[in-house]
Amino acid sequence: MENEILDYLSEFITLNEEERNALLQCISIKTFPKGSILIREGDLATHSYFVIEGCIRQYYIEDGIEKTTHFYTENQSTPSYFVKEKKTTAQHFLACTEKTKAAVCNAPDEMAFFKDNPRLESLSRMLTEQDFVDSQEAFAKFVKSTPEERYKDLLKNRPDLINRVPQYQLASYLGIKPESLSRIRKRLAKSVNTEI
Amino acid sequence: MENEILDYLSEFITLNEEERNALLQCISIKTFPKGSILIREGDLATHSYFVIEGCIRQYYIEDGIEKTTHFYTENQSTPSYFVKEKKTTAQHFLACTEKTKAAVCNAPDEMAFFKDNPRLESLSRMLTEQDFVDSQEAFAKFVKSTPEERYKDLLKNRPDLINRVPQYQLASYLGIKPESLSRIRKRLAKSVNTEI
Repeated sequence: MENEILDYLSEFITLNEEERNALLQCISIKTFPKGSILIREGDLATHSYFVIEGCIRQYYIEDGIEKTTHFYTENQSTPSYFVKEKKTTAQHFLACTEKTKAAVCNAPDEMAFFKDNPRLESLSRMLTEQDFVDSQEAFAKFVKSTPEERYKDLLKNRPDLINRVPQYQLASYLGIKPESLSRIRKRLAKSVNTEI
Repeated sequence: MENEILDYLSEFITLNEEERNALLQCISIKTFPKGSILIREGDLATHSYFVIEGCIRQYYIEDGIEKTTHFYTENQSTPSYFVKEKKTTAQHFLACTEKTKAAVCNAPDEMAFFKDNPRLESLSRMLTEQDFVDSQEAFAKFVKSTPEERYKDLLKNRPDLINRVPQYQLASYLGIKPESLSRIRKRLAKSVNTEI
C-alpha cells in the first residue's frame, strides 16, 4: 500500500533501509471516502496530505459561496501550514472529491523525522522549491489568461480533471460562473466541428 | 552591507561563525540600477534573488503585452528555478522597478552550500514551505476576489506597493486595465469622502 510513495520518491533518491523504515513510521496511509472533509475553516492546520490516488479540493467559503482554488491529485501535496512552529488556523477547507488514498503526516512528527534524516530533508527542500515554483507559475498563468485560455490549458495539462470534478467546482476554479463554462465548452466544440 | 540578510535569518536561527562565513561566501550582495533586467524569457534560470532593499517585478510578455504577476520586495525571495539539477529556461522576465539591493545565489553554489550546512538547509526548507503556503494563499485570494477587493487587500497588506510601482504595472498585477484601476480608486476615494 505504501509502495506508491516509495516509488515516487525513488525517482529522486535511493532510500536505504533505515530511511525507508523511518519514512513509513512518520507517515500513515489513509483512505478517505468521497466527500470527506479533511480540514475546515477555523481548524488548526497540523497535517499535510500527499495524494497517492484520488483528488482533494481546496476551497473557501465567502458570503456562503464556495470558491475552489485548487485540486490536488496523484503525486501532489497539500502545503504544510504548520511553519516556524507557529500554530496556524486554516482559512480554507480541504475535501475529497472522490475516494482518496493519501500519505498523511503531522507537523511535529515531520519535524522530528527531518531532524533524523537530513538526506530526506534535503530532498523535501528541493521538492518544496519545485512546488513553490509550480504554484508561482500557476498563479502567473491564471493572472495572464482569459477563462477560455485557462480552460484550454486545463484540457491540455490536466485533462483528467475535466471529467473528475463537478462542473460548478471546475467553473469556480477557472474563476467563472457555470453558465460561462458551458458557453466556453460549446464554443470550443463548435470550432472543433468547423475545423473538421 | 550583508548585515540585512544575517539580521533577517537571525529571526529564525542563531548562526555560528562557520555558518555565517559559509553563507557570506555563497551569496553575493549586488546593487542593480532601476530598470535592470535580471532575467529574460528564454534565458537559463540559474540564480535566485533575495531582496534586501528595492523591488523586483516578475512579468510575462503575451502577444506583445506585459502581464505583471509578482512584485518581490524587502525580505522576499524569487523562486529558485533550478530544481532537480535540471536546467530550466525561464518563461518570464525579472526586472528591477527601482534601484535594488539583493543577495544573489547561483544554484550549484547553493547546492554545495546546503550539503555542508544542514541546519541552514533545514531552515531553507521551512522558509520555502512558508513561501509555498504564501503563494498558494495569494493565488486563492486572487481567484476568489474581485479586482476592487484585490486593490483593497493591497492597500491593507502592501500599501507601499501602491506608490512604488507604475500604475499600469499595478493594474496588470490586479488583472485589470489601467482605466479600471482609475475607476476603482475614484470610487473608493468617493466612498471615503462620503463616510467623512
